[in-house]
Amino acid sequence: MTQQTKDKFNEERQILNELVMKYSSKISKRFLNLDAQVYQDGELDSKTKEMMGLVASLVLRCDDCIKYHLIQCHDHGVSSLELEEILSIALIVGGSITIPHIRRAVSFWDDLQ
Amino acid sequence: MTQQTKDKFNEERQILNELVMKYSSKISKRFLNLDAQVYQDGELDSKTKEMMGLVASLVLRCDDCIKYHLIQCHDHGVSSLELEEILSIALIVGGSITIPHIRRAVSFWDDLQ
Amino acid sequence: MTQQTKDKFNEERQILNELVMKYSSKISKRFLNLDAQVYQDGELDSKTKEMMGLVASLVLRCDDCIKYHLIQCHDHGVSSLELEEILSIALIVGGSITIPHIRRAVSFWDDLQ
Amino acid sequence: MTQQTKDKFNEERQILNELVMKYSSKISKRFLNLDAQVYQDGELDSKTKEMMGLVASLVLRCDDCIKYHLIQCHDHGVSSLELEEILSIALIVGGSITIPHIRRAVSFWDDLQ
Amino acid sequence: MTQQTKDKFNEERQILNELVMKYSSKISKRFLNLDAQVYQDGELDSKTKEMMGLVASLVLRCDDCIKYHLIQCHDHGVSSLELEEILSIALIVGGSITIPHIRRAVSFWDDLQ
Amino acid sequence: MTQQTKDKFNEERQILNELVMKYSSKISKRFLNLDAQVYQDGELDSKTKEMMGLVASLVLRCDDCIKYHLIQCHDHGVSSLELEEILSIALIVGGSITIPHIRRAVSFWDDLQ
Repeated sequence: MTQQTKDKFNEERQILNELVMKYSSKISKRFLNLDAQVYQDGELDSKTKEMMGLVASLVLRCDDCIKYHLIQCHDHGVSSLELEEILSIALIVGGSITIPHIRRAVSFWDDLQ
Repeated sequence: MTQQTKDKFNEERQILNELVMKYSSKISKRFLNLDAQVYQDGELDSKTKEMMGLVASLVLRCDDCIKYHLIQCHDHGVSSLELEEILSIALIVGGSITIPHIRRAVSFWDDLQ
Repeated sequence: MTQQTKDKFNEERQILNELVMKYSSKISKRFLNLDAQVYQDGELDSKTKEMMGLVASLVLRCDDCIKYHLIQCHDHGVSSLELEEILSIALIVGGSITIPHIRRAVSFWDDLQ
Repeated sequence: MTQQTKDKFNEERQILNELVMKYSSKISKRFLNLDAQVYQDGELDSKTKEMMGLVASLVLRCDDCIKYHLIQCHDHGVSSLELEEILSIALIVGGSITIPHIRRAVSFWDDLQ
Repeated sequence: MTQQTKDKFNEERQILNELVMKYSSKISKRFLNLDAQVYQDGELDSKTKEMMGLVASLVLRCDDCIKYHLIQCHDHGVSSLELEEILSIALIVGGSITIPHIRRAVSFWDDLQ
Repeated sequence: MTQQTKDKFNEERQILNELVMKYSSKISKRFLNLDAQVYQDGELDSKTKEMMGLVASLVLRCDDCIKYHLIQCHDHGVSSLELEEILSIALIVGGSITIPHIRRAVSFWDDLQ
């Protein structure tokens, strides 16, 4: 089940990413490269960074970004109880306007379990 | 017709809200409780508050929030002429970037009539 | 006191508005005209519309817009208890990120009393 | 192919725009009129203005607005190499949160070719 | 030095918070209470949560919120090297539009050291 | 006059940029580098790109970003009549919430003349 949800998301993402590359200037390509690097282990570990990416995506209300970071958080061992606390922070910071995104987030997370 | 549009929206919402509860910390639950209370009659009546909730949802461009408040406004007796003026305020404050959300809002409102 | 706070705000606004006019195309001028009209009495009364303008300004976090609508709300007889409820809606919809703007709003409102 | 993609988008838009008109106050109608005029040739040519409209839509992350301006840019002769540079500006200004919108933008643009 | 920067910030905040309380409904007070609780130790420790609060504040571009979480991060032992990585995430997610806020953030952080 | 306004802005910016560098990871430095490159002549000329940067900054309501691009636009020969049209696009796309930023923009632009 997990694998299927992830595979579908990743497959669609892959197809679109190839199109992004087709229309990417050198600067865009370098930016996408930085985007891939910024969540890697460093002073802070990758799990912490992915949780930060998730909070940022939630308060900025970007469903695809949320799904991406949910998969990453899941792969880095974030538990459902930890997720609850991440969602609370997003909800308090971002307010009720984030609720529809949180609805879709928990639905996706539930599929990942 | 009205009833069907509302029922479909409320049903989907209900299913997702149960998932939200499944992954809600105490803090999130309390927040959701406040969210339910804030539009109730007080110094200002509930109709006025729902119209404010609608304007806020329009300028923040959240389609699900817009639909929710459209249903509430409809239930509180907001007329189509009043809706026009609410949409104008949102359009002037939020600019043309709100137009696609206004398109979907009037389509949903028209179904509610 | 009220008068002084308002006068200072309106005076600065006036000076800048003349500069805006100096650099306004016909389209901008027409837009500014619509902006002035949209809060006037119609199906909904002006007080209700100014309260909506205030909520929109709060969730979009624009301090100058908030101050402008606070003055308008004050002039249209919005009470401090009504203001409390408007602030609650903005706080719940927009989340804790609106708090600094609410701090400045109540400070300005307090001067207006 | 181009024509089909455009036609589908324009058709859906047309249906919804009629509903918008049905629920539009005089002020909303005047605003929609200004929105139509603001991209016309003036001191700056229409192509430049449409590219600006596209950048604004990308950083504000409005998919329908992006599609609309992509069609306009295409009609005004914006090349794929020029599009790449527009996307780069949006990506650098707006950050990775714009990536899902850029994915959908290039997919739509690719259909237009 | 640290103490002075913090004291000034906290003092101004305190004065305004008293005004906020003066104009707070029960719902607002409860919300402010939740806001205070959400960063406390739980499944995730307080340091991690404050770093998340900082990232959220940076991408939502709220200077006062940023300062507040910088103080909290400092008090929870976030190092300057860790801060660098938090800023990088905010910069990549939020884009160049966050740069002026990052400028003010590092200036405030530097005073805290 | 022009020179003085610019000099003051650039000087303050310079001081803060050195602090940004002090707390910048490799990734942040690379991002800042891309930010500097993205407005350079390419398929589109630098003037067009700076005007796009200005529109993006206006609709995202970032005063420092607006000032920066106003200086760049001024240096690239953007006329006051062209500026009027750029402001109109921002005003129509972003709505009345952009007005306070437009006020400050025209005030800065007027100083630059």
